Amino acid sequence: MKLSRKDILGMEDLSVEEINLILDTAESFIEVSTREIKKVPTLRGKTVINLFLEPSTRTRTSFEIAAKRLSADTISISAAMSSMVKGETLTDMARTLEAMNPDVIVMRHSAAGAPHMLSGLIKQSIINAGDGAHEHPTQALLDMLTIRERKEKVAGLKVAIVGDIAHSRVVRSNIYGLIRMGAEVTVAGPATMIPRDIDKMGVRVSCRMKEAIKDADVIMMLRMQIERQDGNIFPSLREYSNYYCLNAQNITLAKDDVLVMHPGPINRGVEIAPDIADGSRSVILDQVTNGVAVRMALLYLLVGGK
Amino acid sequence: MKLSRKDILGMEDLSVEEINLILDTAESFIEVSTREIKKVPTLRGKTVINLFLEPSTRTRTSFEIAAKRLSADTISISAAMSSMVKGETLTDMARTLEAMNPDVIVMRHSAAGAPHMLSGLIKQSIINAGDGAHEHPTQALLDMLTIRERKEKVAGLKVAIVGDIAHSRVVRSNIYGLIRMGAEVTVAGPATMIPRDIDKMGVRVSCRMKEAIKDADVIMMLRMQIERQDGNIFPSLREYSNYYCLNAQNITLAKDDVLVMHPGPINRGVEIAPDIADGSRSVILDQVTNGVAVRMALLYLLVGGK
Amino acid sequence: MKLSRKDILGMEDLSVEEINLILDTAESFIEVSTREIKKVPTLRGKTVINLFLEPSTRTRTSFEIAAKRLSADTISISAAMSSMVKGETLTDMARTLEAMNPDVIVMRHSAAGAPHMLSGLIKQSIINAGDGAHEHPTQALLDMLTIRERKEKVAGLKVAIVGDIAHSRVVRSNIYGLIRMGAEVTVAGPATMIPRDIDKMGVRVSCRMKEAIKDADVIMMLRMQIERQDGNIFPSLREYSNYYCLNAQNITLAKDDVLVMHPGPINRGVEIAPDIADGSRSVILDQVTNGVAVRMALLYLLVGGK
Repeated sequence: MKLSRKDILGMEDLSVEEINLILDTAESFIEVSTREIKKVPTLRGKTVINLFLEPSTRTRTSFEIAAKRLSADTISISAAMSSMVKGETLTDMARTLEAMNPDVIVMRHSAAGAPHMLSGLIKQSIINAGDGAHEHPTQALLDMLTIRERKEKVAGLKVAIVGDIAHSRVVRSNIYGLIRMGAEVTVAGPATMIPRDIDKMGVRVSCRMKEAIKDADVIMMLRMQIERQDGNIFPSLREYSNYYCLNAQNITLAKDDVLVMHPGPINRGVEIAPDIADGSRSVILDQVTNGVAVRMALLYLLVGGK
Repeated sequence: MKLSRKDILGMEDLSVEEINLILDTAESFIEVSTREIKKVPTLRGKTVINLFLEPSTRTRTSFEIAAKRLSADTISISAAMSSMVKGETLTDMARTLEAMNPDVIVMRHSAAGAPHMLSGLIKQSIINAGDGAHEHPTQALLDMLTIRERKEKVAGLKVAIVGDIAHSRVVRSNIYGLIRMGAEVTVAGPATMIPRDIDKMGVRVSCRMKEAIKDADVIMMLRMQIERQDGNIFPSLREYSNYYCLNAQNITLAKDDVLVMHPGPINRGVEIAPDIADGSRSVILDQVTNGVAVRMALLYLLVGGK
Repeated sequence: MKLSRKDILGMEDLSVEEINLILDTAESFIEVSTREIKKVPTLRGKTVINLFLEPSTRTRTSFEIAAKRLSADTISISAAMSSMVKGETLTDMARTLEAMNPDVIVMRHSAAGAPHMLSGLIKQSIINAGDGAHEHPTQALLDMLTIRERKEKVAGLKVAIVGDIAHSRVVRSNIYGLIRMGAEVTVAGPATMIPRDIDKMGVRVSCRMKEAIKDADVIMMLRMQIERQDGNIFPSLREYSNYYCLNAQNITLAKDDVLVMHPGPINRGVEIAPDIADGSRSVILDQVTNGVAVRMALLYLLVGGK
């Protein structure tokens, strides 16, 4: 079975049926990574280009492992060694890669909409691995796979997302996906980190974390992007964590069997207390494991299985 | 069939027979990259080291894809992570790589003659992927493959090469190859960018672009290396493009079926107008596609086919 | 046959039997790299992550070639592109990688003990590829394989190690291994570069190179880490080489069939004279060749062979 689409650009335009197909396929791929021989010949002779124009360890590594376990050939291109330092436009760079006949281009870019722009220009499949503060659909899919694995459904669950809502592509993709699948989503964070009009996406908004996580089935904590803050970071960081760090006290407001999620890398003691990150309700590492399976599923659905 | 040589160092010492063998072989490899399964087992168990001591996206990616489609194992070494930052000589580095028993070392280096120096020292095949302003033979071969594909011959064609002739390794390799294959070559560019004595290579020289491209069958535009210019770049860039940018007006001087070529990455509006780069006479992306085929051919001819 | 241990962290805790098993296995792998098809299917479907948080060419390349010749999938992660620049702890990074189900993590880190710390935390095998100034066990094993290849034994040999003893992980690993295998080891270097209490490791200590290399069967010269010196380097470098450079004169003090070794990259004329580095007694390039074999052996013994 295949997706009847060329690209995975965002959660915004994925239907319920498509999401279910991707998650079902991913579920069947989880097992491959636990085998003695972690490899299937599905994508032998296919070429996957990982075009990461922003730094990344986990997403790039996850895609590279996914492609290799499907027997695809992988090529990594990073910003530092790219010809964009020579002034080439993104369009020309993409057309150049297209001319080398890859099958999929996995792409991370600092500009929102970059993969969408290329989508119409080149014939190969594009998977958005993060575009600015816009979307990060494979993260939302692996999050949903993790929720479904533990809760057996997504519809009807109460999901709280806490942190810097305004600058997070993880949040946007998750809101699109979770709302579509029937979850109730509440976002919380400092007023300066909540975008105006976010309620139009169908979520409830709160400035108070405690309100957001009350009776939650799932709490997604967002990474505070410390490296993007300027000089006056420490006073505000401490204040931030006073109000928005998930810890042993405030987590008692949520359901007993709440799932604690985080896209990583985590800042221990900033947005999440160490004992919660490492505790029994945390599924942070399951998210990583499921990330490989989701990416295998997408590569398979887009270019394999004929 | 094999080349009876260990290395591909430059076009200067390739015979007509060798060039024809390489182009014929490359032609047969073009098809592999259009298959459903883009892979042949020819170089299984061979090791190709891509030693790129200058930044490069397209050439490195092209070689890496070529090697992988032949089932070779590839290892990439870039300047940044190389032990040359620890003061190791190039010779010692190459001998160290030799001792790991690769089959081919593909090498880009900022110094003219670097691959030639190593050639006599190490037993494995070396392919020059660009040495300073000296040679870039795989570029010249893919250019010739592209010309032959469209014009069915090289001999007798009028080829104009326009731009910074003095600092271009692409030009030198193309002149050697095109003259040997019987083309008539004219080079044009600002007087400060034309090396003295270049006419001794067998080309006609002009300072006026219009004169050079008149009745041309092929126009090769060179990349203006903006990133290597110093501070006073913008006035001179504008002046440069006034005189040496290929556009809808001056291209009418060439033959109607002229081929427009460029080694990339292109500076739109500097050396080539966007409508010309993207127009029907442009074969710039064919060049990229043929680059993979030429590199597959060279890898195959040097170490496969036994 | 397998090692009955999960990790290779250092020579300190390897038994005589384990060292012999590794060297015997490595010996049988030397031949693979000389074949027409340099590849065995032993580790097909296994994932090897090369996590190099310090720059390295030779060790990373050697491990990557070793893994590929065993048909494993390899993923390289370097410091520059790692999420540690985003403030992630090493532990969290390792757990994240663990969750992607690799089979082996090969790890270089600037902090002594880093791989030991991770060893207890993650379930996959860890191979220490150098931790600060602590250990570099694969270097010691390839050194020992090279000695055994030429001298047919290690026990009873007189081995002199000369240079910056204090800051060298190569030295520490070699001392542990050589002493355990029955060699007599003498270390020599400037007094400021000899750690106190090093004699407790079972070696003889000398400040005079000539004394140390007298009647030696093996001389290991250490790399002077020029790039780690500060501004006042040249006077002291010249003085250093006056006293501690192995050259045609002082080498006559050693046995006639002395082996000259160096872990590379070498500083010609600083710690070793060019004619000695390239001379008939030098086995420096054999060390490199044997490095691939030793790493193949370790990967095989830790995760293959079931």
